[in-house]
Amino acid sequence: MTDQSINSERLWSRIMDMAEIGEIPRNGSRRLAMSQDDIDGRELFLAWCKNRGYQTFYDKIGNLFVRRSGTEVSALPVVLGSHLDTQPNGGRFDGMLGVLAGLEVLETLDDHKISTRKHIDVAVWTNEEGTRFQPAMMGSGVFTGTLSLPETLATKDSNGVSVSDELIAHGYDKGLPPGNHRIGRYIELHIEQGPVLEAEEKTIGIVTGGQAIRWFNVTLQGEETHAGPVPMASRKDPVPALARIIDLVFQIAEVDMASRATIGEIDTFPSSINVVPGQIQVSVDLRSPDESVLENMQQRFLEGIQTIAKANKHLKIEANCIWHSAVVQFDKDMVDAVRGAALKRDYAAMEIVSGAGHDAFNLARIAPTTMVFIPCKDGISHNEREYASPEHVEAGANVLLDTALQFAGKIVSAAQDANAGERV
Amino acid sequence: MTDQSINSERLWSRIMDMAEIGEIPRNGSRRLAMSQDDIDGRELFLAWCKNRGYQTFYDKIGNLFVRRSGTEVSALPVVLGSHLDTQPNGGRFDGMLGVLAGLEVLETLDDHKISTRKHIDVAVWTNEEGTRFQPAMMGSGVFTGTLSLPETLATKDSNGVSVSDELIAHGYDKGLPPGNHRIGRYIELHIEQGPVLEAEEKTIGIVTGGQAIRWFNVTLQGEETHAGPVPMASRKDPVPALARIIDLVFQIAEVDMASRATIGEIDTFPSSINVVPGQIQVSVDLRSPDESVLENMQQRFLEGIQTIAKANKHLKIEANCIWHSAVVQFDKDMVDAVRGAALKRDYAAMEIVSGAGHDAFNLARIAPTTMVFIPCKDGISHNEREYASPEHVEAGANVLLDTALQFAGKIVSAAQDANAGERV
Repeated sequence: MTDQSINSERLWSRIMDMAEIGEIPRNGSRRLAMSQDDIDGRELFLAWCKNRGYQTFYDKIGNLFVRRSGTEVSALPVVLGSHLDTQPNGGRFDGMLGVLAGLEVLETLDDHKISTRKHIDVAVWTNEEGTRFQPAMMGSGVFTGTLSLPETLATKDSNGVSVSDELIAHGYDKGLPPGNHRIGRYIELHIEQGPVLEAEEKTIGIVTGGQAIRWFNVTLQGEETHAGPVPMASRKDPVPALARIIDLVFQIAEVDMASRATIGEIDTFPSSINVVPGQIQVSVDLRSPDESVLENMQQRFLEGIQTIAKANKHLKIEANCIWHSAVVQFDKDMVDAVRGAALKRDYAAMEIVSGAGHDAFNLARIAPTTMVFIPCKDGISHNEREYASPEHVEAGANVLLDTALQFAGKIVSAAQDANAGERV
Repeated sequence: MTDQSINSERLWSRIMDMAEIGEIPRNGSRRLAMSQDDIDGRELFLAWCKNRGYQTFYDKIGNLFVRRSGTEVSALPVVLGSHLDTQPNGGRFDGMLGVLAGLEVLETLDDHKISTRKHIDVAVWTNEEGTRFQPAMMGSGVFTGTLSLPETLATKDSNGVSVSDELIAHGYDKGLPPGNHRIGRYIELHIEQGPVLEAEEKTIGIVTGGQAIRWFNVTLQGEETHAGPVPMASRKDPVPALARIIDLVFQIAEVDMASRATIGEIDTFPSSINVVPGQIQVSVDLRSPDESVLENMQQRFLEGIQTIAKANKHLKIEANCIWHSAVVQFDKDMVDAVRGAALKRDYAAMEIVSGAGHDAFNLARIAPTTMVFIPCKDGISHNEREYASPEHVEAGANVLLDTALQFAGKIVSAAQDANAGERV
């Protein structure tokens, strides 16, 4: 039996149309959360949805939902989704792929006149990127109750504009209480944002869950002084100790092949070529798919920091954990369904653990959840050069379609039964 | 024979009055070059000068000059000076001390009705700090011909305002051609900006010259990627190599006690906690009072960078020298005059090499020049906490007075001869 497939040309052309909203040089897109470009992107998406007559609604944190109704009115929906906001120098696939492939699933079902028992919804989660407003995964965080609505609404960007200001300005303030709209299952299609699928020549990543993540701020407090007059021995220069902290962090990451350590931010103050920094701030991001491994990494990190602090008594060195996210295990039945869909369509597939955070991690707290990955060129994401091939986009959307249908319950019509019968 | 001394209360009160222009919390001052606060500071200074009837004039880069005329109209002046602009979080002494002590010398001579053969001028050099407009020591650089006037006038601050814009706005554009006003000798009183005089319990630093300085930009180019998905071995992360560069720089500084190495700026791009930096920019400042030692330091630094680059072929690492300043040797007779003045007044004094750059380094190219240092508390400068004691300020100004008088040629009147005779 051959299943229906998505319309890959339509999906590709919608991705390209969306990329023109907030377009930046070198094929990039910039739609910072709740900026006018983000709103314009949502409007384009809503126009496509309304054109099909789908019901749309939103909640008080600006999460958007589109519904293709099922026959069982009171059953909880199968939700497909992701986000439309981007990084400042974002690409064309991170987020958009999951949303637009979700819409493509609905339209494919319409095109083939397929009914489902359960509703299939497409969700657009507010501010997944966390670049303009922190934290990331904001909309899904509020929806799933890990973030407080009032505190999140009060969050301000660097210009002092709050989330609430923007929601009011764009007419998103009168929505449903977030989370009031219960969901049955959640499936998110996304580019891998890493090089593994490409290197292994796989088309589909069967995502079994997400890495545990811990974020730290390290502060090295010394004493600001002029680069010329003060002898080296009299200085309280934090820079030499920074080298020890870098060595420590990268040594910790050698624990196994699956763990990660990243120093993304190093800030010297006052940052002048002829001034010994009085202070350095360093960010540390540690990840592992194994919670106990990460616990051990954290312990070695904090002990290492203490050792460095003892060896540098002229400085004040502190490390604080500022955020953590536990290991996420996706729903076994849903992971199996993704594997089955890839197998049936003969797509080369492998199991993979998500290294990046996704809205699906939040959703996994409240409903059976899984993700589908497709490769992205050279593993590059959060960058204008981000690219996924039309073939991989098509394959990912077909796996999304099949998995959604399996859990939404395809209603086989008499005509389709007859067709099926002919082929036996 | 007891010489005339400066009026220490008047000088101290003028320093405190000047500090109120552009005052910032914690006793700091902010008078960025050619900002309204800098102009207001100059106006206050000019009001004091005009009150005494001194001739004032300026040049096309905004350098201000105040003249107390000598009897030999065509003789080149002895110039005392420094600057009135400050760092963004500047203190009350860096720059102002040399200017206001210069004015105090003129007023002391008036108070005691002392004539000199040569003119004594006080110079206020434009933009010594180089915080708003680069490079530093701009006014003295143009005056001495090391900087081009047209290029310097076109220099813009981070808001796109040029030096020329500000000079026109504040009426400083119609002055003399810089350097047209030739000078005979230059003496600059300044706080040490380091801890040596305080540690050695000396009141006067007999400055024999300035360290040679070389500035480098180091760029580590890797590849920006997400902190989660990409395995450590697949990354092009420049951070581990940064640790090697830090170690290299501080190892080089161990060559002797007098040399210095500073990493003041480290910038990661894009600077996000969950993004492996695609690029790091590092500033390196190397100094030595011995040109050949500094040459050797530079060679070791550049060779070390090449070694690190070879060991990190996944990165592109480059180091470029962006500025250098040769060793400055002050005029032997003037250094001896400072030593003699300190000895005569019984101030504890020692020879010292300036680690910081000063306008005097530029002036030394065109005229016999020297500097006088006084201690500053804890060696702190470029900071609101910068402090020099009234006793040290008085001592420094007295040495400035005596040295200026020696080279300007005090004309001993009959009355003073008679007094001197009484004391014999």
